[in-house]
Amino acid sequence: MACSWSEKILQLLRQMNNFYLAGSCRSSCSRFEIDGAQVGWIPPHLVSLLTRYPDVFSPPHGGAVSLHRSLDSYGRRSEAVDRVLQALRREASLSCLKGWRDEKYSVMPTFSDPPLMWMERAATSLFGVKRYGVHINGYTVSGSGEVSMWLARRSHTKQTYPGLLDNMAAGGLAAGVGIKHTLIKECQEEACVPAAIAEKARPVATVSYTYEDEEGVFAESQFVFDLELPPEFKPRIGDGEVHEFYLLPIDKVKELLATDDFKPNSALVVLDFLIRHSFIEPDTEPCYQEFVVGLHQTL
Amino acid sequence: MACSWSEKILQLLRQMNNFYLAGSCRSSCSRFEIDGAQVGWIPPHLVSLLTRYPDVFSPPHGGAVSLHRSLDSYGRRSEAVDRVLQALRREASLSCLKGWRDEKYSVMPTFSDPPLMWMERAATSLFGVKRYGVHINGYTVSGSGEVSMWLARRSHTKQTYPGLLDNMAAGGLAAGVGIKHTLIKECQEEACVPAAIAEKARPVATVSYTYEDEEGVFAESQFVFDLELPPEFKPRIGDGEVHEFYLLPIDKVKELLATDDFKPNSALVVLDFLIRHSFIEPDTEPCYQEFVVGLHQTL
Repeated sequence: MACSWSEKILQLLRQMNNFYLAGSCRSSCSRFEIDGAQVGWIPPHLVSLLTRYPDVFSPPHGGAVSLHRSLDSYGRRSEAVDRVLQALRREASLSCLKGWRDEKYSVMPTFSDPPLMWMERAATSLFGVKRYGVHINGYTVSGSGEVSMWLARRSHTKQTYPGLLDNMAAGGLAAGVGIKHTLIKECQEEACVPAAIAEKARPVATVSYTYEDEEGVFAESQFVFDLELPPEFKPRIGDGEVHEFYLLPIDKVKELLATDDFKPNSALVVLDFLIRHSFIEPDTEPCYQEFVVGLHQTL
Repeated sequence: MACSWSEKILQLLRQMNNFYLAGSCRSSCSRFEIDGAQVGWIPPHLVSLLTRYPDVFSPPHGGAVSLHRSLDSYGRRSEAVDRVLQALRREASLSCLKGWRDEKYSVMPTFSDPPLMWMERAATSLFGVKRYGVHINGYTVSGSGEVSMWLARRSHTKQTYPGLLDNMAAGGLAAGVGIKHTLIKECQEEACVPAAIAEKARPVATVSYTYEDEEGVFAESQFVFDLELPPEFKPRIGDGEVHEFYLLPIDKVKELLATDDFKPNSALVVLDFLIRHSFIEPDTEPCYQEFVVGLHQTL
């Protein structure tokens, strides 16, 4: 298994970071700037569309699209852009806006900067705006030290990646909502994990990547938590986003990572778990260092 | 403490990755290529020097310096380059060669590729050749769960970073030597940790960075291991590379990270430990994600 497994994992990391590869749309994208700071990447077809809204988006200049200078506050920027997005949504020409969620995501150059505006979640990939989320590795350790991991099979009716394997719980970070708070909420809603258990989750890492597909540019960082669960605890289906939960031995999880049965970003989160918990060793995995670097790419 | 501590850590990460910053020597460096694959970066002053050895280094072409095509094997390349380096060493014009160590490092495009040649350790920064090493976090957990970390104070007579704080043990990866093997050897030599204890160390991460200084370009990846030590165990000074060992509460270690008392790359290894062990939390540390990304930069 070793050699082809490693190759499959490298492929996954390349695919999840394909925006950095030669031949990506990156060279034809305009920077999306607010107040002179880059907050995203806009592909050429959207740049043309946006010229129809000159009171919101200034004409492209020096490889960048900026907001009109009259939009000088968080509220003004958010509302003006939202009006444009609502108009584009009604036209129905942009497929990703069909997945409109009524969820507000913060827009900022880096996570430590104050948000400059909010944007509807479904539009963030259109503007290559960076998104943040939380992923939780739920796992158990038996008396003899054997580690097993809880995986979710996503509902077959989910809008994205239906029927694929996923972490026990995960969710996007909405504007103004805390990271641990999001984690506890998602654990409760998706997996019926009581707050008293979920709050024991430990922050351990982030996983960052940027890929492009037909829907846009996905620049994302996930805050990763490990949650060791009592052996007798079983997650249960909550809000219907999950079809089924499985508790699998870690070797089986590792094997599944290299199949097409896994939601790709969740596979990265599990890869990070395998490395941190020493289930992959650098003397026997020649790509060890490439794996780690591949889990932490950003622009 | 929080705000200035974060700023100091961001500064450290920027300094350790200054080769990527605008204004670094990167734009004036030539790629060092073997068989068409890049293995390093050569600064302009060295490019001029190397033109004196046309039977070893081909004339610069298309921004790259390559080995002469007659050097078509691991042995031939290594020996020919070593002859040039010995000659340059005798001339004593390159300060970094004064630190000649008689240690052979592997030269390859990535760690998973077969080595294309070996090069004297002291010369690798001259050619911006990537180097690999091992760093060990030695720590204890008290009965009540308090974590303390063993730090070494480097000998005041060490060639590099004399008198600064360091991980319990660390060492470079010489050509053909295993990672775990290097770890066990360094633990024994530097800290008198018996092999039976050192072999319990767990591989958990890599830390990667590239900086330039007056000595050259330092492109490095460290394989990181955690070693939980029995509370009663004390490392002892071995080969004289260490002046003293300290067992410090983790909060004190965190505080020291942001001082100039720490060897910079060892500070990164400790930062990674603090993140993996949840001593830094993303809701209270706004730079959490930037920290993680900064620990995993590569070309």
